[in-house]
Amino acid sequence: MSFQLTILGSSGALPAYGRFPSSQYLHIQKHHILIDCGEGIQTQLKRFSIPTQKIDKIFISHLHGDHYLGLMGLLFSMHLNRRTNDLHLYSPPGLDQIILLQLKYSKSALHYQLIFHPIPDGASVCLYEDNILTVHTIPLRHKIPCTGFLFQEKPKQRKINKEVLPKDMLLAHIAQLKLGEDIYNDEGALLYKNTDYTLPPRPSYSFAYCSDTAYDESIVGLIKEVDLLYHEATFMQEHEDKAAMTLHSTTLQAAQIANLAKVKCLLIGHYSARYRVLNALQEEAATLFKNTKLAIEGETIDLEKL
Amino acid sequence: MSFQLTILGSSGALPAYGRFPSSQYLHIQKHHILIDCGEGIQTQLKRFSIPTQKIDKIFISHLHGDHYLGLMGLLFSMHLNRRTNDLHLYSPPGLDQIILLQLKYSKSALHYQLIFHPIPDGASVCLYEDNILTVHTIPLRHKIPCTGFLFQEKPKQRKINKEVLPKDMLLAHIAQLKLGEDIYNDEGALLYKNTDYTLPPRPSYSFAYCSDTAYDESIVGLIKEVDLLYHEATFMQEHEDKAAMTLHSTTLQAAQIANLAKVKCLLIGHYSARYRVLNALQEEAATLFKNTKLAIEGETIDLEKL
Repeated sequence: MSFQLTILGSSGALPAYGRFPSSQYLHIQKHHILIDCGEGIQTQLKRFSIPTQKIDKIFISHLHGDHYLGLMGLLFSMHLNRRTNDLHLYSPPGLDQIILLQLKYSKSALHYQLIFHPIPDGASVCLYEDNILTVHTIPLRHKIPCTGFLFQEKPKQRKINKEVLPKDMLLAHIAQLKLGEDIYNDEGALLYKNTDYTLPPRPSYSFAYCSDTAYDESIVGLIKEVDLLYHEATFMQEHEDKAAMTLHSTTLQAAQIANLAKVKCLLIGHYSARYRVLNALQEEAATLFKNTKLAIEGETIDLEKL
Repeated sequence: MSFQLTILGSSGALPAYGRFPSSQYLHIQKHHILIDCGEGIQTQLKRFSIPTQKIDKIFISHLHGDHYLGLMGLLFSMHLNRRTNDLHLYSPPGLDQIILLQLKYSKSALHYQLIFHPIPDGASVCLYEDNILTVHTIPLRHKIPCTGFLFQEKPKQRKINKEVLPKDMLLAHIAQLKLGEDIYNDEGALLYKNTDYTLPPRPSYSFAYCSDTAYDESIVGLIKEVDLLYHEATFMQEHEDKAAMTLHSTTLQAAQIANLAKVKCLLIGHYSARYRVLNALQEEAATLFKNTKLAIEGETIDLEKL
């Protein structure tokens, strides 16, 4: 029942001090997801023992190089490693052309299927839904079409309270209880009251990924009360002007969004190459939003333990 | 007067054991050249203190990902670091489309000029020539259009023997002596015999880069007696069948080419991910061609000291 995020890359546009460009690995129950694919992602996946061939969905926020240039090499390596399962790619339009052109010139026919899902520009849409998870877009304000992603677990089934469960209960009734239903007999009389035999379900978690973006309060409604918000903080507050010019955010702007959205925890990253040591960024953001963490490569955040 | 080669990446298609995909840096006098640009090249350039912004020519052997996927990130970083000088890109056709498409989607107008030189398929051609250097193609046999590169220094000027030089000699005459000419007066009488006042020039060096290729003796004529031959050796001899199937070479095949071409030194690389330790590849090649070196990332080979 995991909901865990592992940081693979935390750097802004220029790699610096051994930090890699943007990339995160999200493990939600049976789903293995990559979010952005900066150059060197293969190195990082191997370094942190991520099960690469299990990844079946990749979400690319936008087509600036530091967010997708590791993808092509990853696709080639998956092919060389004999991957056969489908791979879904979600990104602003254009990624399909970029990939297909490179496959054409390398004369590569992949052993597996690539399924492209171009993201329309504009209002938030649902990109994916199954019985576990929904993924919605978060329109961001950047130099080119750019979108964040909101990952939300669906409500989970109630847990059977084994200590009070009659030994002769039918499996069909247990399944109904898990769905939260009361059980009636054919005459309509109550047989089992749900809350007598079940415990509340495990909590469901939510994670919002917002990179790259200028300060933009219009996203607050979409990310309200998420458990974990990743919001870029390329600059310290003293460079607010640079942030505005490049359509990036500062530490305090990220913290302000976290405050307005009343999230549980804020994770900052996409650090400018000017910062060798990162503590000051965390400290500055924490003056406004206390529960702020730094995105540190190789660290895993378990949303059940926030 | 340097002629030095630095290995930046030595791995075959799959990065392994911390080795990076193909990339080499060649410093010939005033020329700063990259040959192939595997993913992660920016990391390697920084790690080995290569003057990145001085690089003015990049030669790409072919459009398999492990030979060019680091290029796009490098181009973006050169831009972000305010490069203004022209950059010449030599590669089989298609690289221009791949780059321009990615520039289009990232809406990037580079601060510097990219000049594409598509390499025609077929016989060897001269790609570049100035008063220092020529660069010719070496057609290779691989799955897609693929070319090696032959870098040859032109003969250098003779050196003035300062110990015997008359103090009143005209600068114009010194320049003529450097060019190897004798000096006559207006009446046609010999004033200075060149060999009396000059010493032989420094030697000129040559380097041939051959990756990726099946065993192919037709290249021998082109690379005859080069000082340094880089020839891929993806496999040990026991995997000759795999080499044939994938149009790569074995250690002994690389050594055989070195023998036939009577080169001074053979450098092997493009190692398969199956080899953790590389000594055995060098030892096997050396049974056939004694002066064989392993391409080791970070090592510089000075052709004056071979």
